[in-house]
Amino acid sequence: MKAGVIGATGYAGAELVRLLLGHSRVDGLVLSSVSFEGGKIEEVYPNFTGIISAPLVKAEDVVETADVVFSALPHGVGEQFAKTCVDKKTPFVDLSADFRFGDDEPAFKKWYGKGYVYPDLRKYSIYGLPELNRKKIKEHGGAVIIGNPGCYPTGSSLGAFPALAKGLVAGTIIVDAVSGISGGGREPSRQFHYPECADSVSPYKIGSHRHTPEITRNFTAMAETEGRASPSLVFTPHLAPMNRGILSTIYIPLAQKAPENNEEQVSKFRSLYADFYKDEPFVRVLPSGVIASTNRVRGSNYCDISVHLDHSGSVLIIASAIDNMVKGAAGQAVQNMNLLFGFDEKTGLEAVPALF
Amino acid sequence: MKAGVIGATGYAGAELVRLLLGHSRVDGLVLSSVSFEGGKIEEVYPNFTGIISAPLVKAEDVVETADVVFSALPHGVGEQFAKTCVDKKTPFVDLSADFRFGDDEPAFKKWYGKGYVYPDLRKYSIYGLPELNRKKIKEHGGAVIIGNPGCYPTGSSLGAFPALAKGLVAGTIIVDAVSGISGGGREPSRQFHYPECADSVSPYKIGSHRHTPEITRNFTAMAETEGRASPSLVFTPHLAPMNRGILSTIYIPLAQKAPENNEEQVSKFRSLYADFYKDEPFVRVLPSGVIASTNRVRGSNYCDISVHLDHSGSVLIIASAIDNMVKGAAGQAVQNMNLLFGFDEKTGLEAVPALF
Amino acid sequence: MKAGVIGATGYAGAELVRLLLGHSRVDGLVLSSVSFEGGKIEEVYPNFTGIISAPLVKAEDVVETADVVFSALPHGVGEQFAKTCVDKKTPFVDLSADFRFGDDEPAFKKWYGKGYVYPDLRKYSIYGLPELNRKKIKEHGGAVIIGNPGCYPTGSSLGAFPALAKGLVAGTIIVDAVSGISGGGREPSRQFHYPECADSVSPYKIGSHRHTPEITRNFTAMAETEGRASPSLVFTPHLAPMNRGILSTIYIPLAQKAPENNEEQVSKFRSLYADFYKDEPFVRVLPSGVIASTNRVRGSNYCDISVHLDHSGSVLIIASAIDNMVKGAAGQAVQNMNLLFGFDEKTGLEAVPALF
Amino acid sequence: MKAGVIGATGYAGAELVRLLLGHSRVDGLVLSSVSFEGGKIEEVYPNFTGIISAPLVKAEDVVETADVVFSALPHGVGEQFAKTCVDKKTPFVDLSADFRFGDDEPAFKKWYGKGYVYPDLRKYSIYGLPELNRKKIKEHGGAVIIGNPGCYPTGSSLGAFPALAKGLVAGTIIVDAVSGISGGGREPSRQFHYPECADSVSPYKIGSHRHTPEITRNFTAMAETEGRASPSLVFTPHLAPMNRGILSTIYIPLAQKAPENNEEQVSKFRSLYADFYKDEPFVRVLPSGVIASTNRVRGSNYCDISVHLDHSGSVLIIASAIDNMVKGAAGQAVQNMNLLFGFDEKTGLEAVPALF
Repeated sequence: MKAGVIGATGYAGAELVRLLLGHSRVDGLVLSSVSFEGGKIEEVYPNFTGIISAPLVKAEDVVETADVVFSALPHGVGEQFAKTCVDKKTPFVDLSADFRFGDDEPAFKKWYGKGYVYPDLRKYSIYGLPELNRKKIKEHGGAVIIGNPGCYPTGSSLGAFPALAKGLVAGTIIVDAVSGISGGGREPSRQFHYPECADSVSPYKIGSHRHTPEITRNFTAMAETEGRASPSLVFTPHLAPMNRGILSTIYIPLAQKAPENNEEQVSKFRSLYADFYKDEPFVRVLPSGVIASTNRVRGSNYCDISVHLDHSGSVLIIASAIDNMVKGAAGQAVQNMNLLFGFDEKTGLEAVPALF
Repeated sequence: MKAGVIGATGYAGAELVRLLLGHSRVDGLVLSSVSFEGGKIEEVYPNFTGIISAPLVKAEDVVETADVVFSALPHGVGEQFAKTCVDKKTPFVDLSADFRFGDDEPAFKKWYGKGYVYPDLRKYSIYGLPELNRKKIKEHGGAVIIGNPGCYPTGSSLGAFPALAKGLVAGTIIVDAVSGISGGGREPSRQFHYPECADSVSPYKIGSHRHTPEITRNFTAMAETEGRASPSLVFTPHLAPMNRGILSTIYIPLAQKAPENNEEQVSKFRSLYADFYKDEPFVRVLPSGVIASTNRVRGSNYCDISVHLDHSGSVLIIASAIDNMVKGAAGQAVQNMNLLFGFDEKTGLEAVPALF
Repeated sequence: MKAGVIGATGYAGAELVRLLLGHSRVDGLVLSSVSFEGGKIEEVYPNFTGIISAPLVKAEDVVETADVVFSALPHGVGEQFAKTCVDKKTPFVDLSADFRFGDDEPAFKKWYGKGYVYPDLRKYSIYGLPELNRKKIKEHGGAVIIGNPGCYPTGSSLGAFPALAKGLVAGTIIVDAVSGISGGGREPSRQFHYPECADSVSPYKIGSHRHTPEITRNFTAMAETEGRASPSLVFTPHLAPMNRGILSTIYIPLAQKAPENNEEQVSKFRSLYADFYKDEPFVRVLPSGVIASTNRVRGSNYCDISVHLDHSGSVLIIASAIDNMVKGAAGQAVQNMNLLFGFDEKTGLEAVPALF
Repeated sequence: MKAGVIGATGYAGAELVRLLLGHSRVDGLVLSSVSFEGGKIEEVYPNFTGIISAPLVKAEDVVETADVVFSALPHGVGEQFAKTCVDKKTPFVDLSADFRFGDDEPAFKKWYGKGYVYPDLRKYSIYGLPELNRKKIKEHGGAVIIGNPGCYPTGSSLGAFPALAKGLVAGTIIVDAVSGISGGGREPSRQFHYPECADSVSPYKIGSHRHTPEITRNFTAMAETEGRASPSLVFTPHLAPMNRGILSTIYIPLAQKAPENNEEQVSKFRSLYADFYKDEPFVRVLPSGVIASTNRVRGSNYCDISVHLDHSGSVLIIASAIDNMVKGAAGQAVQNMNLLFGFDEKTGLEAVPALF
């Protein structure tokens, strides 16, 4: 099977290449890049030297020849390739936001500043969070587009889902998240220039980050699945001096205050979480005494979740850790491919998190 | 004037030495250390080589000879030195938690596990947050103990004070704070071992950090000053891979929702904050477009505050940045000394934050 | 096949566990730890949660039941386990220095401060640098001990071997190497305490590092293979604020000065290097324009080598990059296991270096 | 006295602003910037908020009004301002390479690719390394241009000078240096993009870095001062993931091999170094047991030097640490200003290195 990656020289694209090189069902890659067309992937990313030597072709050639197409283009420029793939019944996994909002074009337009190019394509699209839509993804009808989730929405949705599904929530959920710098992409800029961001932490886009509506929509979807009211959301992203990882601290006001904050109370919530995720291959609800930390999931597709209470017992506090490049982007895209093709969901995602 | 530092070889103690070396009113230092007694400060901290050569003596000798005594000992072991200083009318600035709670020994006991050694000393003690208690500190009666604030309480209190004073708050304030690793002190441990904490972010002591009651008390004090109800608090500290700095993101539910989230609305709150702090030498309310970031206060005694709204206009979001070793510890102690002795409050604290 | 790891909770041991979990020929692990005996590996390293749940047993039990034994104990304490393995004809791969010096007990004694426990075991031992001793390792006689190379010796030997083999060297070779902090092991200490080593570079053990005689011995072995005189060595290790990686800059005075320093001259040396390593699966001689960098081999078993000349053409400068935990320790141990058992040499070592 | 900075918004320029703000003899600053002309320095560097509010004017206005002019422009574009200053007898301190080579225009041309604009200006210029040219700098004739040294040349020259002056050297000196990322300047680029350089070490410009001729010239100047032969040089710079600092490891082949490598032998060389620098205010020869480390000079104008021998006693190894932004750029420029104006050499450079 031949996998194609459009936009292979961005960080998400190159991470896809890395993961697909280790995928036992993929035996060929076809890669495109606008910036480096005519070059080779190993010239742009010397870490691939001696492992793959792949020319960077046009996106059209990828769409033409691949059995599955991943698109790691920016928002708003890849719909034409999705269209061709739908016509050819080649599954299309889009890492941009273009297909995350389905019918809700107004939400997309409000936050991303422009409308859809081919609105009709949304009848083929599925939001690719397996923990929410696994069944739909598996039972697709051949012509299918996956709107691969954003990095922050993945970590925060998985952290809040059990509480939402079980109706524990009363009031506004606050998601305070910290991301590694790779989340800003490959293009150099002052903000991500080493001396400007090393040894420092800062929030950014407070009250205005584009992942806000995607998280809200996911919270609502899960709450509604179980007939619950949808909560409101406050979301604040931060940057920390690390390469990879997102740590989300999620504050969930409890509809019913715990009588106190002790290990017994916490363990009830932990059990509820563990039970909710018991069949999930990539969600790990951590045992008592272990707190989610980004270095424990580094390089892997896991989402680690630890469960806590504030000192008064009124607020459930969830810490959720993912690798923003894997579960938050390329790894989840591969997970979606596995579901689309009926492969074992863990294929190509077997990496054991490195110690450091 | 001769300044003494008890516990000079811990991180806070050594930072005090660094600041006092640049203080124009201090012309002598007397330093003690239990761990390195008999050695010299520049052997423990080679950065002092050629600048100071000071023997490490007994704490008793510091108390005996200094005109002001700073104590950077752990909690619970320095009260005897405070007592001697009170008897001698030598001002005593304590960086531990021993004198932060005043008469509220139960709160101290609950969170720190033991009671006071000399409870009566609290009649001489003042909580040393100048932005709250400047007048009291200046008008002390000679025998005086300063309970120098904790690092997290400093950043979060300054970030929330204007909102509390003006009665903007309705409901629980959430403080989500990220600290550099120096906050963990000088003693090596697994948690602060480089490969275990580099390139990673994680929360810790969720729902149980000892600074929780101190922050709550400060919030209450400010609210009551202005006759407001005291809010409840959720506080979560995190560790990020940086040496210095605390970034606090403070979520303040507004009693009165802003009609929308736009620059005009935000600027009203910003003006309120700027006005509140207009005479403070070390609090900088940042202009529109600038977000608080720990690297902008590095090495200085500033607390930077930026003012924001969540996307719905319901929650005031404050970002507050301090250097945990300076405004969060040693710098604030020097600021208190300046107030105690009637010096210009900025003496010895003139450092311009380094660019990186 | 069941693999055993003695000392599984040190950094090298845990990295072995990580690699062996992804090894297609290994279907069981048996792990020991003195410090955590009776516990489980995933309690010590939560990154293994949900992937493996393995009790930490006694070293004797590992030796008893495993088909291959890796020992990641400190120097001088594991010979007894090697002895038992030799008796049982269980291949023993030792990551300590105990078996790196073969018959040269005096060299070991001089630098490590004590002699051998069972000197006779050296008749079964092979120095496990595949690029030097592949044939010997493959043709072992059943009872075999591998003295797995040190991290610095691996990077600097591979960088200098072609020049030594081809007789290019005249005079003293200087190896200036920079290591990530994981090289210091898991035990917390002041030197590796985050605030003491972050954002800083420093040399250490100048003129006295224990890897000096191992590097010298390797240089001599390669020079003698080809009938050349053995060079003298100056070796200086440094610490840099990164988790993994060793970058060695190797200064090789040329017996015959290049007429000038231009790309044509350099390419002759590069070709010689590329030719020397053309059949090596884990040595990558980088093309013109690419300089060895530790982040390009992170998490992989590769040794990247780039070839340069000083501005006058008198000194060949080699930059060599390895991951100290993989090619510098656990990965090379697995590579040795593969050779010992006749597996494909790359089995379990297929990891594509991550982009960052 | 009013100090002017041309090019105030680059890293070296902004560091000058920071230092001059704390200089007791400077009571006004006039700043220029091409990129941000018409803006204010505190808008470009928010760390200056509330400390200075200075408009960014044209370079001509700086030259017009300042009593001393610092130029932090790139190479080749500032000579006109130097010319005007010479005409006005305003001392001009140039941080670019334009005036580092004096009469040796061919060397400048060879390495920097273009000749001088006003060659005659070199009769007013002095190479501003105080440890080499203090007397000349102090005794300037009014119209004077200081060619402020490069960062690498400062650290390596100070490390090698005593050995050169005392005739200890036989053969090629190798300088292997590691710099923090701020050395690359403020302009974002792939090389200095956080995810590309964090957690990694790599050499660059091997055999071709422009500081090579400047270091060679300094070595020669010191050797000739004392009538010694000038040595040849190999220089290799590296980048490490830290903000500030240069650590130079300098390999000096000894004309006379030490009988062995022990503390007694080393202490002879250390004494020689300590004696050589005994009157220097900013060079610290470290005592036995302390190794130069960049974090010990951070933020200060010190150059720390530690003295070592290789294991055979043939090579003197010097570790030298500076802050590349201070002693390697802006601090040394201020030191030169102090000498030019007859101020105490340490004025404005009193900063005690921070612990971390």
